[in-house]
Amino acid sequence: MEQTLKHLRANRAANLETLKRYLEFPSVSANPQRAGDISRCADFTAKLLKQAGLDEVAVHPTPGHPLVTAAWRGAPGKPTVLIYGHYDVQPEDPLDAWEQPPFAPWIKNDRIIARGSADDKGQILMHIQAIEAMRRENRPLPVNVVFLIEGEEEIGSPNLPPFIQTHQKDLQADICLVSDSAMWSTEIPAITMGLRGLVVMEVTVTGPSLDLHSGTYGGAVANPLEALSRMIASLKDDQGRIQVPGFYDRVQPITEAERRDLEEIPFDEKAYLKKIGLDIGWGEEGHTLLEQLWYRPTLEINGLWGGFTGAGIKTVLPSQAHAKITLRLVPDQDPAEMADLVLEHLRRIAPPWVSVEANRLPGGGSAVVVPREIPAMAAATQALTESFGHKPLFIREGGSIPVVAEFKNLLNAYTLLIGFSPPNAKTHSPNENFHLPTFHTGTESLVRLLHHLGEQNPSA
Amino acid sequence: MEQTLKHLRANRAANLETLKRYLEFPSVSANPQRAGDISRCADFTAKLLKQAGLDEVAVHPTPGHPLVTAAWRGAPGKPTVLIYGHYDVQPEDPLDAWEQPPFAPWIKNDRIIARGSADDKGQILMHIQAIEAMRRENRPLPVNVVFLIEGEEEIGSPNLPPFIQTHQKDLQADICLVSDSAMWSTEIPAITMGLRGLVVMEVTVTGPSLDLHSGTYGGAVANPLEALSRMIASLKDDQGRIQVPGFYDRVQPITEAERRDLEEIPFDEKAYLKKIGLDIGWGEEGHTLLEQLWYRPTLEINGLWGGFTGAGIKTVLPSQAHAKITLRLVPDQDPAEMADLVLEHLRRIAPPWVSVEANRLPGGGSAVVVPREIPAMAAATQALTESFGHKPLFIREGGSIPVVAEFKNLLNAYTLLIGFSPPNAKTHSPNENFHLPTFHTGTESLVRLLHHLGEQNPSA
Repeated sequence: MEQTLKHLRANRAANLETLKRYLEFPSVSANPQRAGDISRCADFTAKLLKQAGLDEVAVHPTPGHPLVTAAWRGAPGKPTVLIYGHYDVQPEDPLDAWEQPPFAPWIKNDRIIARGSADDKGQILMHIQAIEAMRRENRPLPVNVVFLIEGEEEIGSPNLPPFIQTHQKDLQADICLVSDSAMWSTEIPAITMGLRGLVVMEVTVTGPSLDLHSGTYGGAVANPLEALSRMIASLKDDQGRIQVPGFYDRVQPITEAERRDLEEIPFDEKAYLKKIGLDIGWGEEGHTLLEQLWYRPTLEINGLWGGFTGAGIKTVLPSQAHAKITLRLVPDQDPAEMADLVLEHLRRIAPPWVSVEANRLPGGGSAVVVPREIPAMAAATQALTESFGHKPLFIREGGSIPVVAEFKNLLNAYTLLIGFSPPNAKTHSPNENFHLPTFHTGTESLVRLLHHLGEQNPSA
Repeated sequence: MEQTLKHLRANRAANLETLKRYLEFPSVSANPQRAGDISRCADFTAKLLKQAGLDEVAVHPTPGHPLVTAAWRGAPGKPTVLIYGHYDVQPEDPLDAWEQPPFAPWIKNDRIIARGSADDKGQILMHIQAIEAMRRENRPLPVNVVFLIEGEEEIGSPNLPPFIQTHQKDLQADICLVSDSAMWSTEIPAITMGLRGLVVMEVTVTGPSLDLHSGTYGGAVANPLEALSRMIASLKDDQGRIQVPGFYDRVQPITEAERRDLEEIPFDEKAYLKKIGLDIGWGEEGHTLLEQLWYRPTLEINGLWGGFTGAGIKTVLPSQAHAKITLRLVPDQDPAEMADLVLEHLRRIAPPWVSVEANRLPGGGSAVVVPREIPAMAAATQALTESFGHKPLFIREGGSIPVVAEFKNLLNAYTLLIGFSPPNAKTHSPNENFHLPTFHTGTESLVRLLHHLGEQNPSA
């Protein structure tokens, strides 16, 4: 292992050059005109996997963009690790806001700047280069490895779940490994222990059967915008508690261990809020900000619309009002059950002078918690501590990564979420960047991680 | 006068042909490509006024579409009547929904069907043809007459108030006459005694300074869509009473005379609501539906928007939420004072975790009430009763006609609002139509009206 780390250190310049080549592909999955670039980037990914000494390298066409897989299965009796990532990137606009063109990677103050550098090409390449170093001169790996790299993560992974379903046998693993999240700081690594689940809904409130003149009819006819506003307003009390009966029934209290994890987080609430232009937050009373984000379910209005929304005025009393509503769920809250609870509540609280249609939309899934006790967690903690000189923080994430629930459901495997994206990486924004010392040290931590996983009993 | 009525009856076929010609102009003021048609329609209007024996006929260019004026001032010592109307029409779309092309007038079941037939070419032509009949063989009129016919009513009359201001002397009148409203039924005429005033406002609520991911931030950061919904919900109580302090301070109770007028209205609330797809109305408790529409002020949400409003979902916690709000005012409620009351209230009720910007938008004006006691009202009542064989109903209108307030403010003249548009005229909709018996009988009533006005003392 020490030889591998030495080899990596000697090859930093070459590895950085490869990263630059990888970042030059404008693999924007949302842009249909980039389909050719996406396809070339998939082929380049496959080439990288082959050069790293992996077998079974394949580019799989899908109804959308191709998936790339590879494997090395030369360690019978050892655990199998499924490494997931994505080679597609977010759209680059607004182009004007970039200091240099988004697909011409350049370096400034220890950071490489390009679209996809942090999300997720830089992070997936760390895994590939860790394997390449370990497989030099055809050496064996300490574990079996399967790669699954998709090209549609930034557009919701429409073709990933069916692919996992039809390739369950090839993808079978003891543990999954996803690096598509963030470090706590450039010095402090983090392991994400939980993700919230997601339920998506849409509500339409109908008053009169047609748009009416608000002068001729106003005052005597219920306005659906007003009715929907009143419904939304009633969904939480003044303490931010959601008023849907049964909403909190399955929410577990925060455990002592979780509370200790939370206490170790050096979180500056004021700075966090200041970055998003706020002096004060607002959430469920009786919980800290991190508890609100990580341990409590939400009901959020993501869109609200109806009537006239242009410049000036149109004196309309509209026929309909609409809202998009999402729930973020915590463990033990079943998406279908929670959706029904909220949809039925919405139908119940609609006043008799309007009609309401409330439906669940596709997408979303269950919350995920990775138990602290699984042996892989110890391996990860050890690898990160040795490499960064700092014990990782055990954090959660308020958002959802649906593929992690799929890995649990379809492959029955937990996922280690170890992210290397630095703070201020500007993912999804202009001047996205990746911290180069983290790129190199992180790659070393992945070598250590595979070694430590290889020392474990796969059935443990 | 009887001779004039006879003459009109003998000329019905010719007058109807003129109406058809007038309706063939596609004078859609909202459509810039129709500017040529609008201009030709203005010239045709001027030609009609000249043929009717009016003097001082002029087409006035404006920054938008032309205004047409004319006058006959041959009755010194008699009242001067300002007749207002508009030759522009609403857009014709959706074109598919018309039984015949919108600018090819045709007749079906006693109705002429074409865009502009009821709103307002048919009604303005009734006035012109009444004058034409009275002026046959150069006979004098019983009153002085001024015509003011604009081409921008359907786009908010942007150039009308400045024109009135700069032509106050030419337009000076004892009474104004506007036919741009409706009959109560094809048998029962109506005089509109009051219009509500209008105030237009826009509110923007800002939470975080940028759109946030609703998973990563949801639960700890106030959502402006939710904050605005709660603000809107608080603006009325469960009995529909507006909760802005001082909102009702200047509202006058309904008088005994007004109550008697209301009691005479054969109003079928159930049928009214059924036509707009409703079983029940919703308004301020303690008032009948007509009182809610005609005698009570409103606060109405005309538009509400923010966040993601497309298909599917974007898990956004938006930075901003917006609403368009209008007030309908009753007499004694000053638009500026009422706007301030509501805007200050909105600023006051915004929770501390969002900022609110609330502004008044241009447009609107004061409520108008025409006193029952003015002598012109008696003349109108008599003329309508004689012509239709039914006393007119004294109604109000929940909407606003800003020019009527301008006539009061700038010319110090009250307006008789005598409308001939039949029920189900489909103004602003496909298959707009005008009831031909009303067209002919209404023209006769206008002859009678001018005669009766001529019998009155202008300074009374």
